[in-house]
Amino acid sequence: MKTQVGIIGAGPAGLMLSHLLHLQGIDSIILESRTKEEIESTVRAGILEQGTVDLLKSAGVGDRMMREGHVHHGIEIQYNGVRHRVNMHELTEGKEITAYPQHEVIKDLVAKRLQDEGEIYFNVGDVSLQDVDTNSPKIRFRQNQVEDPDVMECDFIAGCDGYHGPSRQMMPLNLRQEKKKIYPFGWLGILAETPIANPELIYANHDRGFALISTRTPQLQRHYIQVDPSDDIKNWSDDRIWTELKARVETVDGWQLPDGPITQKSIVPMRSFTCEPMQCGRLFIAGDSAHIVPPTGAKGLNLAMSDVQVLNRCITDYYHSGDKRHLERYSEIALRRVWKAQRFSWWMTTTLHRNHEHSSFERGIQISELDYLTSSRAALTSLAENYTGLPLEWESSVPV
Amino acid sequence: MKTQVGIIGAGPAGLMLSHLLHLQGIDSIILESRTKEEIESTVRAGILEQGTVDLLKSAGVGDRMMREGHVHHGIEIQYNGVRHRVNMHELTEGKEITAYPQHEVIKDLVAKRLQDEGEIYFNVGDVSLQDVDTNSPKIRFRQNQVEDPDVMECDFIAGCDGYHGPSRQMMPLNLRQEKKKIYPFGWLGILAETPIANPELIYANHDRGFALISTRTPQLQRHYIQVDPSDDIKNWSDDRIWTELKARVETVDGWQLPDGPITQKSIVPMRSFTCEPMQCGRLFIAGDSAHIVPPTGAKGLNLAMSDVQVLNRCITDYYHSGDKRHLERYSEIALRRVWKAQRFSWWMTTTLHRNHEHSSFERGIQISELDYLTSSRAALTSLAENYTGLPLEWESSVPV
Repeated sequence: MKTQVGIIGAGPAGLMLSHLLHLQGIDSIILESRTKEEIESTVRAGILEQGTVDLLKSAGVGDRMMREGHVHHGIEIQYNGVRHRVNMHELTEGKEITAYPQHEVIKDLVAKRLQDEGEIYFNVGDVSLQDVDTNSPKIRFRQNQVEDPDVMECDFIAGCDGYHGPSRQMMPLNLRQEKKKIYPFGWLGILAETPIANPELIYANHDRGFALISTRTPQLQRHYIQVDPSDDIKNWSDDRIWTELKARVETVDGWQLPDGPITQKSIVPMRSFTCEPMQCGRLFIAGDSAHIVPPTGAKGLNLAMSDVQVLNRCITDYYHSGDKRHLERYSEIALRRVWKAQRFSWWMTTTLHRNHEHSSFERGIQISELDYLTSSRAALTSLAENYTGLPLEWESSVPV
Repeated sequence: MKTQVGIIGAGPAGLMLSHLLHLQGIDSIILESRTKEEIESTVRAGILEQGTVDLLKSAGVGDRMMREGHVHHGIEIQYNGVRHRVNMHELTEGKEITAYPQHEVIKDLVAKRLQDEGEIYFNVGDVSLQDVDTNSPKIRFRQNQVEDPDVMECDFIAGCDGYHGPSRQMMPLNLRQEKKKIYPFGWLGILAETPIANPELIYANHDRGFALISTRTPQLQRHYIQVDPSDDIKNWSDDRIWTELKARVETVDGWQLPDGPITQKSIVPMRSFTCEPMQCGRLFIAGDSAHIVPPTGAKGLNLAMSDVQVLNRCITDYYHSGDKRHLERYSEIALRRVWKAQRFSWWMTTTLHRNHEHSSFERGIQISELDYLTSSRAALTSLAENYTGLPLEWESSVPV
């Protein structure tokens, strides 16, 4: 088995990379350990930056998103019981965000790849990488988890296999550095059958902890509350969840949070993680394989998309002109944007959550950060340009 | 002895308050524990915000500052060996900062107060406050440190007596909260007989630690390097200081730091401190008595000036209309600006210093903060509007 680019992982990064390479006439094969049904039904939130929306559209995979996604022009920030609207559309001169869940993006990309006769092997097992420091790296794997091992020979390998995948682990420990932070926060997330609570997302800083009011469909809403990351979901009855949510967000005059049956609930911990570099020999990692952001800034999916845009351009340059210079700088170019998104996600997380390890001074700084933010057009513009997505790092990173 | 407003402390806050009250026809007397010569010769840096410059001018005490102060339209931020100019004048649509040392401001204010026959008792001792929770508070003190105690009866007392003064201590512990942070940084500051190194201030983040290149006169320069706050100045020979300074700032192609005889050197620790509230009965505290900021943001003198502008307005409203409502809200109004300046000073300090307690993730966030800052007009505008001074909190704080 042979291809130009062997891609491990059929998440947003791997699927989009395969599609973008195809548009440039470059072959790839995707290996995925889960089944097609599994990846298409793993429910994930999705707030798409303007740049991600533009990418999906220009790559011809944005039709359903444009029909079914919900465009938001702003968000609301609440603290000290007062709500402040951030008009991102106006602050960024026309940018917006689109709520369209990650698994819907995946469905659209899988459909498009299969329609274009792209090769995706689902349900593969025992994936391992070989010879990544040579000119002919290989991926070994078993189809349907059980058959005899196959070997795929490639020019390059793209590791898009998430935090727990084998790609990053192939980079020798003395050649990579993992930079991380564990937050003393967890998110208890629910799906609830209620009407939409608010036309835009509400991010609330409350003495009892952070809360996020969000939406999925007109009938199904997604809300979150900050809890201890080691807490057990069994401690949280539906009644207790609604009581806590209301205590944190119903502080604005007369506004009430509609409640209803909770159909799904779980607790996830929060962390930040970056692997440096994002390449080693002919292996390039992208998306969650290379970095994890806490969900507060809604950057995970968007970072995966910007990583593969850069990687696609580097690989395309190589095949079209034989010039390896950009490919050699993939990690350097991608990491500048990754770190800016890490910074924004860290800032949103530390500014909005109640940290019980904080001193009274640190709590004072947090509240004054929100007071300054909501009173300064420059600070609001900074929030808006990060939330709707900073420009792709390329022009500023690549010397002419 | 009787006056309308008894002022403790002849620093910038006390002197400016006395002068502003005089312009409104309100009497005050200032008590100061040091001599006139001492307060006029205590050398302190001074970066005046646009609002402080405007205040000095409009109050008729800005003539010498306008002749002798140095107007700066920007600063330079250096990290990873590259220097970035922040054009604050352009980013804030015309605001600027003026370098004019604090002791020169004090000289001008003392001269003006004495010219207007204002009463300042220097070299007083044993200052204590009485009956601040009644309508006739009193200050006891001894003239020339030794004579029999005098008692000054006032309508109000303004505590402008710095961090170690007696005013704040008079506020019962159960009625005040002190919010503070000690940084693991000290500043080793020097005065050196050399030519000006750079037309504008250089703030440098370097792996070896922070450095600040500043100026005093064409012949005398003021520079700082981050050191351990518990370090002893005896460990720092002039040679070692110049070597360290050059290692941190001479990373820009060809640029050299002029060296020369060091005429003064010392190490100061860095901390943040806010007392809440800033009033108790008929006692009102202002300036360093109520808050300390680390010097990185150059906010100490400017905060003292904005505190007394607010206090002057509250007191004037009372005498002119009998309305105590603003006076009762002095602390609330002043603290909003105090906390924003605390936030900015904390941000400048944590962003520019090398914190050896930081993880590799936190160091990554710091560098990406600088990368984002220097690549975003919104972020640069935020820096510029804070550095040149946020507007006085009044309109937004006082209901009509």
